[in-house]
Formats: sequence, C-alpha cells, structure tokens
Amino acid sequence: MVNGLMNPESTLRMIVAYVGTPFSGWQIQPNGDTIQERLETALARLLRQSTHVTGAGRTDAGVHARGQVAHFEVPRAQVVEDLRRALNSLLPKEIRVEKLTRARPGFHARNDATGKHYRYLLLAARKASPFMAPFVARMSGGPLELARMREAGRQLLGEHDFAAFCGAGSAVRSTCRRLTRLEIVRRGDTIIFDMEGNGFLRHQIRNMVGTLVEVGQGKRAPLSMTALLRTRDRQQAGATAPASGLCLMQVHYGSRAEGRS
Amino acid sequence: MVNGLMNPESTLRMIVAYVGTPFSGWQIQPNGDTIQERLETALARLLRQSTHVTGAGRTDAGVHARGQVAHFEVPRAQVVEDLRRALNSLLPKEIRVEKLTRARPGFHARNDATGKHYRYLLLAARKASPFMAPFVARMSGGPLELARMREAGRQLLGEHDFAAFCGAGSAVRSTCRRLTRLEIVRRGDTIIFDMEGNGFLRHQIRNMVGTLVEVGQGKRAPLSMTALLRTRDRQQAGATAPASGLCLMQVHYGSRAEGRS
Repeated sequence: MVNGLMNPESTLRMIVAYVGTPFSGWQIQPNGDTIQERLETALARLLRQSTHVTGAGRTDAGVHARGQVAHFEVPRAQVVEDLRRALNSLLPKEIRVEKLTRARPGFHARNDATGKHYRYLLLAARKASPFMAPFVARMSGGPLELARMREAGRQLLGEHDFAAFCGAGSAVRSTCRRLTRLEIVRRGDTIIFDMEGNGFLRHQIRNMVGTLVEVGQGKRAPLSMTALLRTRDRQQAGATAPASGLCLMQVHYGSRAEGRS
Repeated sequence: MVNGLMNPESTLRMIVAYVGTPFSGWQIQPNGDTIQERLETALARLLRQSTHVTGAGRTDAGVHARGQVAHFEVPRAQVVEDLRRALNSLLPKEIRVEKLTRARPGFHARNDATGKHYRYLLLAARKASPFMAPFVARMSGGPLELARMREAGRQLLGEHDFAAFCGAGSAVRSTCRRLTRLEIVRRGDTIIFDMEGNGFLRHQIRNMVGTLVEVGQGKRAPLSMTALLRTRDRQQAGATAPASGLCLMQVHYGSRAEGRS
C-alpha cells in the first residue's frame, strides 16, 4: 500500500441505460456514433488513459437499453460514485450510467453473462402515443391474434438451433441457444414481448417478433415454428422487426460473477 | 336533408397529445412551428378549406400535453373516426389526436373550460433517465425538502390574485384565479407537482414551481407565500421553472359543455 503498485488495476462493472435512437448501436465502428465509443471517450478523459469498455450485448443501431452491463479496468482505487457522476455529466442525455460498482477481479460482462432479458414493444394502433413513439415499432399487415402468437411462441421455448432466425454477418461458433421465456401481453395499444434466454443471435429477437407477427396475422400456422427451426434457413422466417421496438432490459449473471468483491 | 345546406356546419371537439420539445408552443405565430398551425394545415388539406382550431390552453414553447382540448367547425357531416385517422397520418409523430367527437353547437374549448390539470416533473437527481429526459426539468440549487414546499403550497390554494406569478406580456382582464389542487409527491428521482385550478396565468405554474423550489431549498420561508401574493409583484417571486417539465394533463368542462350532442 506504499504506492499504487500494490493495487495497479481494479475492475468496475456498470449498468447503463440508453435511448438508442441517435446511435449506430453499441459497438465501436469506423463511421458511426456508438454507445461504446461515447463511454470510452468519457472514461479516457476522466482517467487520462485509453480505456476499453466491454459490453454484455452488442445492441444494434436504434436498439435501446435499460440494463446493459459493461466492465472496464481502472488504474487505481477510484471513488466509484464520483466517477459515475463525472461520467454522467460528460455523457449525452441519451446515455446514463445507472450504477457503477467494483467487480471481482477477472469479471467479464459478456463471457460471464448467464442470461439476458429483452423486451419488444409493438404498436397495435396506427399511430403511437407521442410520448412512446421512440420506443415502439409498427409492422404493417392487419390486426394480430395474440393466442396464435403465444401458441407459436411456445414451440420456440427451450434449447434449439436458431439459425433460421440468425441475421447475416454473424460469426458465431454455434447457433444453438436456450430460450427460457417468451411472454406476449397487450397493454393498451401496445403488445409487449418479453424474451429471456442464455444468449441471442444477431437479429434473433427481431426476426422472431417479425415471424410471430405473421402468425398473429394469419399468414403462418401457429404450429409451423418447429418445422421452421429445422430448416435452419433465414429465408424461411419472417421479416426483421424494426430496431426501435427493442430494449435490453437486464443481463443476468451466476452468483459467482455478480461481482461485488 | 336534400343537400348539405340543412346542416352546413358541425362543431368537433378533439383531445390532442403532443411532445412540445420541437414546437414554438400551441399558438400560431409568424416565425415558429406551432401545434395549432400543424393542426390547421392538416385540416385544411383534408377539408379543402381553411379551418380555425381553438385550443383550451395556449401552452408555451416546449410544454407538453396529454389532454389539450380544441374545437373547430367542419363544413358538413364527417365520419369523425375517419377524419381522426386521416389527421393522425398527416400530423408528425410528436402530435396525436387522441379523440375526436361531435360537440354541441357553440361549444368553445377555451371559454367553456371550467378547469385544467397541469403536471410538472422536476428531476431530483443530477441526470434524468434517458427515457424521461425530454419530460423532466432540473433546477440547480441543492436538495429539496418536500414538507416545506407542501406547507408553502397550501397558502396558494384557493382564490387569489396571482399577479406575482404572472409572466410579462400577458393581457388578461383579471389576475385572480382559483387554485383547487396543489400536490407534491416524490416518485423515484422525480418530484411530481399536480396543480388544478379554474385557469392559469401566463407562466403561473412554472413561476409557482420555481418559487416552491426556493422554499424547498431553504431560500424562502414556507409561510412567505401569502405575503408574496399580496405584493402582486413578479419580481418578488422565484425563477420560472423550465418548460420541458410541464404537461397539460386534462381540461375540465361543466356537464353542459362536455359536448357530445
């Protein structure tokens, strides 16, 4: 404890909320304003050194988050609440660090995640409330029968190869994932899809929503999902639902990785 | 009923919701994008004649509404639900006609209003949730004691001359108004002011909120409101709270003017 060398690095874990509308998604890219880059730029300024921020999920352009989780290393003991306030004052109004805590050494926001909860808000009216407009999406094609969509959804629950719902440009070793929750409820003129699983492929949720909408509109049979999964063919599934309806609600961790050391 | 002359005009009553952020307020003005003008332009296009829309309250630039009421005349029997849909499809996403109904002949949205409910959302944190940012306002100056603000608020209830809270540029016959409700509650990091009365002067609510904030911060005595009212001097009251926190929730009408003929 004579100098900083006794404790050269410390891992911090943040929960971040953002309105995705103005951003090109989470992940840094050459031409685009991204949430990751905003966070790294603010941290570099505060910590006076370049800092890499790793998020649990790489949300797409226009997708929102209430509970994205990320980790990064800080060079020495920081007063985390001071750092959180300073970060929030540098970040634009569309991004807020909700929580900043010390994690156990080695905590990794993406690799340690055991599950994620996403919510999709689908508008069941011609026009959204002006107050909700940035957070809901509309799909054309007529009214939806929720009972049909729920029946189709039940076939997607459990461990499956979700290749048929995987967007192009994804480089994953396996397209198998476990879907543990798929609930569809109507609240006013909004249909809420809650989906949880141990992980999701690129565009998987938006492709599942788009396909379930076709079921709800009577364009697909509710019992066609199992056969669709078996095709492993993205061309067989429905359209990709718009990004604006999607929100990363929460990332789950096993108790060991919860990370308040 | 041989031709349209039997029923040349019909008064319609609308409830309008809007996010005020991008607009220069309700009322048409030479250089500014206003809600009234957006409505009149859309109606002119649909009805093929110039149409004047009269609102119950002239909300300021940046002020929101969930339940603004307005009336206008249509030349002949219209299928109101069709007209509402057509209006909404022409209006920007920040404005939605929530309801459109026939009113009794002579119904006047402003003159017949018997009361209004406004809500003010004040942020009690350094930074708003990204999802709430457009609808809350922050005032500097330290933490607020709600009990003090409530005590001050009780002195404002009832019939008073509110000239001390009346913004410049207002041309009203009387500055007397009756305040029937002033409730202050905290929900999470937001302080909610609910105010109802038979009418409000220009900037009255924002000036009352700004003054109550100074009471909450200990800069004014809770029991100083009665004396402040007596001064009738705007210079004696507090700062005008920002427009972004204010929302017109509902306009009340006596039963006769409710107007579904």
